[in-house]
Formats: sequence, structure tokens, C-alpha cells
Amino acid sequence: MIIMGIDPGLAIVGFGVIEKTRQGIRVIDYGVINTPKDHTLPERLVEIYQGMNALIEKYKPDHIAMEELFFNTNITTGITVAEARGVALCCCMQKMGKERLYEYTPLQIKQALTGYGRAEKQQIQYMVKTILRLKAVPKPDDAADGLAVAICHAQTSLILSGTDIK
Amino acid sequence: MIIMGIDPGLAIVGFGVIEKTRQGIRVIDYGVINTPKDHTLPERLVEIYQGMNALIEKYKPDHIAMEELFFNTNITTGITVAEARGVALCCCMQKMGKERLYEYTPLQIKQALTGYGRAEKQQIQYMVKTILRLKAVPKPDDAADGLAVAICHAQTSLILSGTDIK
Repeated sequence: MIIMGIDPGLAIVGFGVIEKTRQGIRVIDYGVINTPKDHTLPERLVEIYQGMNALIEKYKPDHIAMEELFFNTNITTGITVAEARGVALCCCMQKMGKERLYEYTPLQIKQALTGYGRAEKQQIQYMVKTILRLKAVPKPDDAADGLAVAICHAQTSLILSGTDIK
Repeated sequence: MIIMGIDPGLAIVGFGVIEKTRQGIRVIDYGVINTPKDHTLPERLVEIYQGMNALIEKYKPDHIAMEELFFNTNITTGITVAEARGVALCCCMQKMGKERLYEYTPLQIKQALTGYGRAEKQQIQYMVKTILRLKAVPKPDDAADGLAVAICHAQTSLILSGTDIK
């Protein structure tokens, strides 16, 4: 089973693609969609829509897992990040259907990777590196976060339905 | 020139379509896109995307004007409204292009309709009814808000470019 994890954002959307087999989890690819700061908001939203479409076409994931927004103190940034996340989620829903689209809170992701809901960013990144047997922490951070969501889904769905693994 | 105004939301997207000619402004239609509460967020986002697409196909507006979000105290509602607005904005950008897509703040809309940036909702609705020579205030409120954004754009663009009126 191919799982794509998405860390949504306006300037940077992080993604991580992993394969989950009976033998375990391995990395396939990771990276980011960047939208230029000098583009208008509507332009950047369309770039995210097209970028997500292209990623799904390229990696043909069986499942997509997307991080839910945790609202921080910066309300203005929060609005545009939510607008961008809505676009990414809409695109995934159109391409994948609701049976193959999953959402996880930051708490669930931290819990799944470290067993501790208040884990620091570095602990998450260290676990991504360890679980995927990488030589270094994936960069940029958004790509590592994308991988973290994918791993969270791989581990959670193992518990929920251990039999549907290809 | 046909102008479509959009009041974005997750449960209800309000729209108003007006025609602006040398003789003035007249109403063409108004209404709402509803998304059922028992549908998942991704389903509702796709419904908004499809609904916006259908509206643009039906009314073939020359310009679309969309209200910007004013962040109120309910952060949780704010996130999903922003996700919905992002989807609507993305769809409009894809269909219209950036030269035909405009955004206005609630302050600009109130100012354009009443000359007063802190006008109450009822004053805006009364002005919508008066400007469009309607027998009653358009219902629901979201549709009246859609018309208000369209009127705001008609009046603002009159000042900016009085010559491009069809």
C-alpha cells in the first residue's frame, strides 16, 4: 500500500510518500510544493490545486493522510493556511474519494510516532529518520512533517485493519 | 457587464448576480449553495467547488467579487469557513483568471453600500433592496450579502474604469 502524507500550508505544502508492506515501512519520496510569495492568493491556491493533482498522478497513492490545522496565535497566517488546506483537501477528495482520504490532528501524529502527544518537533523528525532508516532527517521540515503524517496513518491503519495490506 | 458577488461559507455560500449598464444596476438572480451538515468536510468542500463551477457556467459573469474573511471570535468555525473560502476562490481563479476576480473586505463593502464602514447588517440589507429596487430584502441573509459584494464591485469599478462597461 502506497501512503502519501500531506502537511498543508500556503507557502509550502510538505509531502511524504511511503510504502507499507507486511515487512514494514519504506520511504518512496518526499518534498514540497512551493508557491511564490509575489503571486496573488488565488494564484497560489490554484498552484496548490495543480501541485496536489500532479503529486497524486505521479505517486498514485492508495491512501492520503492530511494533517489537521492546529490554530496558533497568528490569526492572519491561520486564515490563509486554512484556505490553502481547504484547496488541498478538496483536490484529494476529488481524486481519491472519501474511503481513501484520512485526517489526523497534530496530537495523533505525535502520539503515533513517539507515544507522547506533546513531543517536540526534533523528536518527531528523529523518529521519521529512524522508522524509515534514513541517513539524515529529511529536509525541509515540511517534507519531514509530510512523512510523519504518512507514518502515523501506516501505524494507525495497521491497528484498525491489519488485513488490507497489499 | 455581469457581476457575481460571493459571500463564502462552509454550510452556506451566498451568491448574487447583477448586471451593470450605463443605465445603472439591476438584479439578475441570487441564492445560496448549501452543503449538508452530515457530510464530511472534504465532501462539503467538493460540493462548494462543484457548486461554484455550476454557478459560473450558468451565469457566465464578466467579473466575480468575493468577500474577504473577517476573523471573529469563533476560531474553530473560522478555520472551516476559511477552508471553504479557499476552495471557492481557487475555483473562481481557475474559471475566471486573475484579471476578472476581485476581493473586498467587509469594511469596503459596508463603505460602498452605506458610506459608513461600521454599518449594521440591516442597513446593508436595506441598501441592497433599495439599490436593486426590490420589493423586499433578499433572503436568506447570505444571498443578500452576495448581492452586497456584487454592488460594492459595481460601484468601485465604476470609479476605477468607467469606460469598460458593456
